Amino acid sequence: MRLRLDVSYDGAQFHGWAAQPGLRTVQGEVEVALATVLRLESPAPLTCAGRTDAGVHARGQVAHVDLDDGVDVPGLTRRLQRLLPDDIRLQSLAAAPPAFDARFSALQRRYVYRLRDRGPGDPLTRGHVVDWPRELDVDAMNAAAEPLLGLHDFAAFCKKREGATTIRTVLALHSERRDDDLLETTVRADAFCHSMVRSLMGALVAVGEHRFAPEWAASVLESAARDARVQVMPAHGLTLEEVVYPPDDQLAERAAEARQHRGH
Amino acid sequence: MRLRLDVSYDGAQFHGWAAQPGLRTVQGEVEVALATVLRLESPAPLTCAGRTDAGVHARGQVAHVDLDDGVDVPGLTRRLQRLLPDDIRLQSLAAAPPAFDARFSALQRRYVYRLRDRGPGDPLTRGHVVDWPRELDVDAMNAAAEPLLGLHDFAAFCKKREGATTIRTVLALHSERRDDDLLETTVRADAFCHSMVRSLMGALVAVGEHRFAPEWAASVLESAARDARVQVMPAHGLTLEEVVYPPDDQLAERAAEARQHRGH
Repeated sequence: MRLRLDVSYDGAQFHGWAAQPGLRTVQGEVEVALATVLRLESPAPLTCAGRTDAGVHARGQVAHVDLDDGVDVPGLTRRLQRLLPDDIRLQSLAAAPPAFDARFSALQRRYVYRLRDRGPGDPLTRGHVVDWPRELDVDAMNAAAEPLLGLHDFAAFCKKREGATTIRTVLALHSERRDDDLLETTVRADAFCHSMVRSLMGALVAVGEHRFAPEWAASVLESAARDARVQVMPAHGLTLEEVVYPPDDQLAERAAEARQHRGH
Repeated sequence: MRLRLDVSYDGAQFHGWAAQPGLRTVQGEVEVALATVLRLESPAPLTCAGRTDAGVHARGQVAHVDLDDGVDVPGLTRRLQRLLPDDIRLQSLAAAPPAFDARFSALQRRYVYRLRDRGPGDPLTRGHVVDWPRELDVDAMNAAAEPLLGLHDFAAFCKKREGATTIRTVLALHSERRDDDLLETTVRADAFCHSMVRSLMGALVAVGEHRFAPEWAASVLESAARDARVQVMPAHGLTLEEVVYPPDDQLAERAAEARQHRGH
């Protein structure tokens, strides 16, 4: 049987999502907890929607795992919640349709990047909100973001990985002030390549500081090459907030489409 | 000259505000930073508005300190902000009128206690929001709070300290849901005695869980004696948000009044 896990975590003490020998990772912790509760001989591998980097947080990470039939889901939920460390929370655990694939069935991922750009910052939220020393021009950031929307090759904002496409559809890229000092940038896309959100943020912040005109962001995109002037912003400001899936009867179709698309 | 400091801090790594030999305290850290920047032979003592306990946070703590005349306030501000540890932030530093007393001139202190009472909690805010395992009835909590408003002897909710009055005026005590799972209780009073907010919260939570009827909180108050059924809630859910002062021309009068009142 296939299970869907909805998980939130504070990324500070993890070397990212993906399991790595000898390092503390979210995947590693959840797999060990599952294996412990179910007395598995070897961990059942988890597949997630967004492989977050070291230090990146999640409130809405989704993963799936295949287990032998007959698992008592409510009992497993309770025991996992007790066993998981304090910086990982299992929001829910449920049987998923066989066609559900946490990675390939996903339609969209939504990330939020948080900054405080006025005053000395809030020590209570410093773990997931970056204290930025200069005030940012939100209108300029949104003007820069506008031409990045839609289907583009985001190679200029991606750390290249062999065999992985850098063509993505960005559905939203919008900054707004929440409180007087808190600035939230929401990014939604079908999927992201490696370090893409933090690089996009680096370009927007450079424009927000008036180091470059808004048009500069589009020119970086068009160059399709990494630009040393685009800073990769700190990991701890970034949170994977949500993963969106289609209705159950479209899961298989979506997964097939995404698998084909990602190969290129 | 007298300086006013507005300070915020994450209380997790402090043994409270008040300096104690050999322990890391907020007062101790700020006094050492001031002495370092100003090359003082011995630290100049700070006086604060609310002596927060170990683990309690502040976004709006206010303190004063007396220094020799001629301090370069903007320069001192910048150097303190650089020198202070990451969990203390100097929000502002300014020359204060001679009659300003951070403790005795204060008219009101406002604290907020934060709980998540639905679901497994948010790991990103777990440092200042208590994850509570049972859902709370906000209407019952507010019904319990109502008769506690006004001038009363709060001995039932205070850890006794020799020579300190337990008579206080509670100006607000109100709980409301922020998000689906976040519950904020705001408490405002002229001043608080030791552990008062966390004890009041313990009574409200007991009512919110339907362990007692709302009337029970008033009966505890009237008993004027510590009641073992009133739990002192965890420190990390509590934040000193604001201290309110009168206009400058009423600072001295207010301080004289408060000094007289507290003595009894």
